[in-house]
Amino acid sequence: MRSWIESANDADCHFPVQNLPFGVISHSGGPPRCAVAIGDRALDLAVLEDAGLINAGAGERVFGQSVLNHFMELGKNAWEQVRLQLSDLLADGGNDVLKDDSDLRARALIPLGQVQSHLPFRVAEYTDFYAGRQHAFNVGSMFRDPENALPPNWLHIPIGYNGRASTVVVSGTEIHRPLGQMKPHGTDEPVFGACRRLDLELEMGAVVGLPNQMGEPVTVREADDMIFGYVLLNDWSARDIQAWEYQPLGPFQAKAFGTSISPWVVTKAALEPFRTSTPEREKVLHPYLREPGPMLYDIELEILMQPEAAGRATSISRTNYKNMYYSAPQQLAHHAVGGCRMNTGDLLGSGTISGPEKAQYGSLLELTWGGKEPLTLDTGETRSFIEDGDTLTLTGWAQGSGHRIGFGECSGKILPAPAEKNW
Amino acid sequence: MRSWIESANDADCHFPVQNLPFGVISHSGGPPRCAVAIGDRALDLAVLEDAGLINAGAGERVFGQSVLNHFMELGKNAWEQVRLQLSDLLADGGNDVLKDDSDLRARALIPLGQVQSHLPFRVAEYTDFYAGRQHAFNVGSMFRDPENALPPNWLHIPIGYNGRASTVVVSGTEIHRPLGQMKPHGTDEPVFGACRRLDLELEMGAVVGLPNQMGEPVTVREADDMIFGYVLLNDWSARDIQAWEYQPLGPFQAKAFGTSISPWVVTKAALEPFRTSTPEREKVLHPYLREPGPMLYDIELEILMQPEAAGRATSISRTNYKNMYYSAPQQLAHHAVGGCRMNTGDLLGSGTISGPEKAQYGSLLELTWGGKEPLTLDTGETRSFIEDGDTLTLTGWAQGSGHRIGFGECSGKILPAPAEKNW
Repeated sequence: MRSWIESANDADCHFPVQNLPFGVISHSGGPPRCAVAIGDRALDLAVLEDAGLINAGAGERVFGQSVLNHFMELGKNAWEQVRLQLSDLLADGGNDVLKDDSDLRARALIPLGQVQSHLPFRVAEYTDFYAGRQHAFNVGSMFRDPENALPPNWLHIPIGYNGRASTVVVSGTEIHRPLGQMKPHGTDEPVFGACRRLDLELEMGAVVGLPNQMGEPVTVREADDMIFGYVLLNDWSARDIQAWEYQPLGPFQAKAFGTSISPWVVTKAALEPFRTSTPEREKVLHPYLREPGPMLYDIELEILMQPEAAGRATSISRTNYKNMYYSAPQQLAHHAVGGCRMNTGDLLGSGTISGPEKAQYGSLLELTWGGKEPLTLDTGETRSFIEDGDTLTLTGWAQGSGHRIGFGECSGKILPAPAEKNW
Repeated sequence: MRSWIESANDADCHFPVQNLPFGVISHSGGPPRCAVAIGDRALDLAVLEDAGLINAGAGERVFGQSVLNHFMELGKNAWEQVRLQLSDLLADGGNDVLKDDSDLRARALIPLGQVQSHLPFRVAEYTDFYAGRQHAFNVGSMFRDPENALPPNWLHIPIGYNGRASTVVVSGTEIHRPLGQMKPHGTDEPVFGACRRLDLELEMGAVVGLPNQMGEPVTVREADDMIFGYVLLNDWSARDIQAWEYQPLGPFQAKAFGTSISPWVVTKAALEPFRTSTPEREKVLHPYLREPGPMLYDIELEILMQPEAAGRATSISRTNYKNMYYSAPQQLAHHAVGGCRMNTGDLLGSGTISGPEKAQYGSLLELTWGGKEPLTLDTGETRSFIEDGDTLTLTGWAQGSGHRIGFGECSGKILPAPAEKNW
């Protein structure tokens, strides 16, 4: 399928007509509204809705809202209906009403370079998992014991913890290096100051579109139906703060200063052709966690690092989402099994996605093995952890036949820590 | 100070005119609206606001809302102004306009027995701390090592973890026993089923009224100013699920099935006379955690347990909030120090409040020492953990001179676990 928007037909374009990811943009001084990305354009859905060309079936307009939550709440039929309407308007040989109306085109199709992206949905709550086997093995080897690197529960439970929704930000938002308590090797007492071991974590984020009720578990299949789509996610991590704080109740301030997501939510519908199974189970899972079909996706992923003065970024890792041991529907089913209510706008981080080879690791902690083996960037600079002014970018796509279902970029620059206050 | 509402002048009344706690109620078939409790009545603030008798200074009405968040967002001056207006309307010798208007009184003053309480604020995010020294010592002794019961960071950091806001419910809401994975002693593999070691945790909840900005730490004094008030909080806990899941990333499903809070938020203004200092520090705190004045409160607390068939509840613990090692402003300052944005409606659980004596412990885990020393209730029944049909009630008050600043009750009944699905 091709689009009459020519840029959407490039083989390496992230946003062909098969994709149609949803986001929230503002442009031309107007307020934020919902959009999809197509080729090198953002398509303003509020304009199309006002023109009567799309309709989510809600009896009220949902695309003039500043978040996707209202649209997501309408459910699967609405998601499918709008996808079909948009596909018909944008594909070659479909409904020509947008293609043939130059005034409407000018108002609705805005060059991506001229739009500001906003957080695409109000993040209700944010949960981060730990579902990459290689990552869990690497971290366990470094901090615990290579002979017993995986925690005893790891092969039985998609281990997760509640993160902080208030600091989930859209790609492009700058992040301050956090202040915090750390206990460097060889010191008797903890010190306070700016994090010295600042890291990223390459993850995918699953966006919950539909809720369950408190006290009502869901099956893995029902969980899959509750998911609206996926984004790239960078779980920025302060390793030294984490090491000192995380026992016994888990990561807290080490992960609370910022989590970046890509601006476009790629729908499950667009990802259908790329479903793949989780790897063979090393332990038999309890029935509530068993997948009735393939629920991971084959998505190529890459991390780029660019120091402030560098003219270009260096690729520091290439991996794939299919490396995960647990899928997002498994994680969501586990999340709800005790009766936890999940809401529209909940965000589930997959856990760090590290492939089996060193060049496929999803964090600096692993890529530099705890800082002991610094990376050399294309500029000749070396990095053990992130320095002030560095920009980290995640990108990813599912490779179709002649097209890519792309996620765009999830990018963030690290600013210096705030000045200490007169405490 | 006395009120012309006679029931408010009883020495053991929780809601004298000195208290004026805020909540959300519905009555007479109407929609939820904001209220304060006074004596044995709820005072409908939407009615008073419509009548022009109170005014939060916002230029718009805030008390017809179904949550207190809009009022809380207005800040300290609005909180003080409304408290003064209400005090004037309710105290003997003040403004008689409500007292003298029988029609208005009938519409605004509703017997507490005729109102339904709602969750008083939209819980933005929920964080639970672990700031009771005796509790941390007890738990550390049971699960780790009595010689090293406190984690190394405990005397330096108010340890906390992110909880789940979506299952914070108001007192009176029934809670299903959760399903989950557990690994009973002596088994090689985990089992799945209904929690067998269901517990409560007696806590206070601090309600954040005002936000900070992402990337901007706050001092302990600023944190104190951000807090709107306090509630009773029961952090229901599934001990067997927790034991199996919590390493390495902390409690998750063990705490996600429900957290109950009392319906009336007691304001910081009402608690001012009861400020007391945290205990002497065993380790010097980093400056960002030092308190510029007393920031705990002297609040008597009690736990009551009532089996389904019992005619009355048994008091199973008496303790005091002043037993905590860290105050809520210290916890909030720590929460924000790395740059985490805190929002209006954030809820901070204090951690389990256990006094030094066994009869003062704040959980069944401690009261029955891991289930080994069951309690005997007044009915003759024994309990190691919570059984289906049991109702647990927290209550508490600050004892003034001839009056109490009371918190009312935080109550919840446990229902059986949901039937397992056809996974």
